[in-house]
Parts: sequence; C-alpha cells; structure tokens
Amino acid sequence: MPQTRHTERHFTASETVRDVVIGMSDGLTVPFALAAGLSGAIDSTAIIVTAGLAEIAAGSIAMGLGGYLAAKSDAEHYASEQRRELKEVAEIPEEEMEEVAQVFRGYGLTQDQVAPVVHALSERPQAWVDFMMRFELGLEEPRPERARTSAVTIGGAYMAGGLIPLAPYIIMSSAHSALLISIVVTLAALLVFGYIKGRFTTARPIRSALETALVGSVAAGAAFLIARAIS
Amino acid sequence: MPQTRHTERHFTASETVRDVVIGMSDGLTVPFALAAGLSGAIDSTAIIVTAGLAEIAAGSIAMGLGGYLAAKSDAEHYASEQRRELKEVAEIPEEEMEEVAQVFRGYGLTQDQVAPVVHALSERPQAWVDFMMRFELGLEEPRPERARTSAVTIGGAYMAGGLIPLAPYIIMSSAHSALLISIVVTLAALLVFGYIKGRFTTARPIRSALETALVGSVAAGAAFLIARAIS
Repeated sequence: MPQTRHTERHFTASETVRDVVIGMSDGLTVPFALAAGLSGAIDSTAIIVTAGLAEIAAGSIAMGLGGYLAAKSDAEHYASEQRRELKEVAEIPEEEMEEVAQVFRGYGLTQDQVAPVVHALSERPQAWVDFMMRFELGLEEPRPERARTSAVTIGGAYMAGGLIPLAPYIIMSSAHSALLISIVVTLAALLVFGYIKGRFTTARPIRSALETALVGSVAAGAAFLIARAIS
Repeated sequence: MPQTRHTERHFTASETVRDVVIGMSDGLTVPFALAAGLSGAIDSTAIIVTAGLAEIAAGSIAMGLGGYLAAKSDAEHYASEQRRELKEVAEIPEEEMEEVAQVFRGYGLTQDQVAPVVHALSERPQAWVDFMMRFELGLEEPRPERARTSAVTIGGAYMAGGLIPLAPYIIMSSAHSALLISIVVTLAALLVFGYIKGRFTTARPIRSALETALVGSVAAGAAFLIARAIS
C-alpha cells in the first residue's frame, strides 16, 4: 500500500506544481482556520500568532518529513516486490506466464491472441518483470531522488500558504480587526489558488476556485464555533 | 493529475485501514506539536485546549472535505478521459491501435508479436477503452461512492488521533505538567500506531514505529522552539 499520493505522469502538470498544490492547499486552510477559531475565543493577537506559527512549523514538518519517509518506504516496497517478481520469473515461469495471460484475458482476449506476447515477454526477463510490476501489480517505479525535493517543496508551500492568513495578526494588535482582514485576504488567496490548481488539474477552474474557498470557509467556521463554544 | 492518494488494490490492507492511517498520522502529529509548542509560550491549558480543538476541527475538515472534493474531481477526470478515448477509438482507430502497439514496444516486443493483441482489442471497443485507460494513461477507475465513506473515515481518524495528545491538557490545569504527560502518551501512541501502520504497509514495522515517532517529535520540537522564541 503506497502511502504517497499517486502521480499521473502523463499529465501536463509538473511534479513541482503537484507538490505546491498539495502543500499550499492545507497551508492556506488550516492556519487560517486555527487563527479564525482562536479569534472567537481570545483577543490577543500575540497568542494567535504564536499558535499560528507553531501550527505552520508542525504542519510543514508533518507533511514534508512525513511525506519524505513515506516516499522512501514506497521505494523500498517497490524494490522488494521487484526482487520477488524477478525470483518468481526465474523459479516458476509457467505460473508467471499464466499471470500475464490473465491480465489480457481480463480484456476479453483469447489464449491464442495472447500467446505471442506471453512468449515474447518470457524471453526477456527484465522487460517481463517491468511489465508485471506495472500491469499486474499496478506499481509505478518510484524515483528516490525526487523524495527530498518533493518534501522541501511541499513543506515550503505549506509555510508560504500559512503565512498569508497569519500576516494580518502579525501586523495588527486587535484580533477582531485582524480576523476580518485575514478572511478577506485568505478567501481571495483560496479563490486564486483554487483557480490556478483547477487549471492544472481539472477542466473546471472556476469550480475548483469555489470548492477550495468552501473548504477553507467550512474549516474556519467550524474552528470559530468550537473555540467560541468552549471559551 | 489525480489529487488523491494512490490506492494499491492488490495489497492486503483494506481501504478503511488506508484511510485511518492517512487521517491518524497527521491527527496524532499536528495537534500534539501545536499543544507542545503553545506550552513553550503560555501556561494556560484553557487556551491550549481551545487552540487544539480548533486545530482538530480545521484539520479534520481540511482532510475530510478536501479529500472528498479531490476524489470527486478525480472521478470526473476519469470520466472525461474515458469519453475522449471512446471518441478516439471510434474516430481515429488507426492512431489508437498504434498507441496500443507502443505500450508493448516499450517492453521490447516486435510489431508481429503485438499485432494479434492490437487486432483483438480493436474489435472490442469497450475493452479497448478500458485497456487504454489503465495501460496508456495509467488511470484506475475511481469509485465515487467510496469518496464519502473515505472522507468520513479520514476526518474521524484525524479527530480520534488529535484527542490523544490533547487529553492531558483537558484534564490538567498546569500546561507544564500536561505537556510531560502528553509527550509520554503521544510518543507511546505514535510508536504503537507506527508499528501497526508498518505491519500493513511495509515489511519493517519497527522502523515504521520509530519513524512515526520521529516525525511527531521533530514537529513538536520545532513548534516548541518557535513558540518560545517569539513569546
């Protein structure tokens, strides 16, 4: 079970864009909601800024370092499955040939139609294993050297996103006034970010903008109500 | 570019386990680190509990609702790509047959070896499209009905995870004492959770336990130092 998000290589969005999207989605949302929630309970921006920066540190490390370790696990999982397939291809080739045939029979092909491909693969063990990894197990070959860059990009995007809703609390002394500015600034940022994200990932950027703003608003509203209820 | 994490169907871990792992990883880590960080700056457990519960609300909604909307986008992306493939298979079958052949040539097969499969697929448009979706585009068919269950499980696991580090602050009045209990309880929870996660996802559960505890510790340490530095 890979723990990292699945990358679709055939898409136009670069991996860096993907990482920025992952980090910034949460970075804009959670610190915004936390600060908004605290504004419902306390009027000291100093405490809200402290909590906000602590959250940004925690969130960016959880996503960055957590993602890095998960990517490393995925790479090791791939390598161990690959070793197993190599072994099976050498030791029980008939069963593995049957597994290749099964992949194709799932698409309605007959044994006769599949036989040339099965035979050809069985003469190229390395290609055979590559084929099994992708088409039987559905695993994409991970690139371990990407894990570090990806972790830094995701963590950095979380930090950059989190500082936007927090900026008004850093500048102003009244939590109430800062909350109003933070809502305006962050909703604008969520709409712009959601739109750009939508341009890269879907055919409907305007809906992506509205959905992204919706998640931020619901999270902030819930945090605000909870903080006010218990304070 | 699918925005949701990739599910490896062939694995033994159920989808529910996967969702609990995703939600609880962050739920144990971020509220723990936030509360620890605030303990470095303020001694009022009331404020720490308020911030912690606001964060749990925000984080679980960001992960749950955000994940739900991303899964819906993925499902629509799949449907739109499927419509495009159906259209291309009907309108430009030669080019699509060449694309099937290319998939196999990537594994060193010759045109002769591939021809029977290409021909057989070309006579079954629905199977052909299914084949292209999986083997050319690398897309797994999403199940939209899963999105809601998955969102609730991830959000619920985040909440359950987040209440563990927060419990000592709820019960006790001294932030300093609560911090010490929270560290002991949460490190134990991270080790147990990391071990169980490792049993499901890797061959090395003990390393998974240590890594999970490491991410939580680094996040909490960073949050603590930042909160103390600015307070």
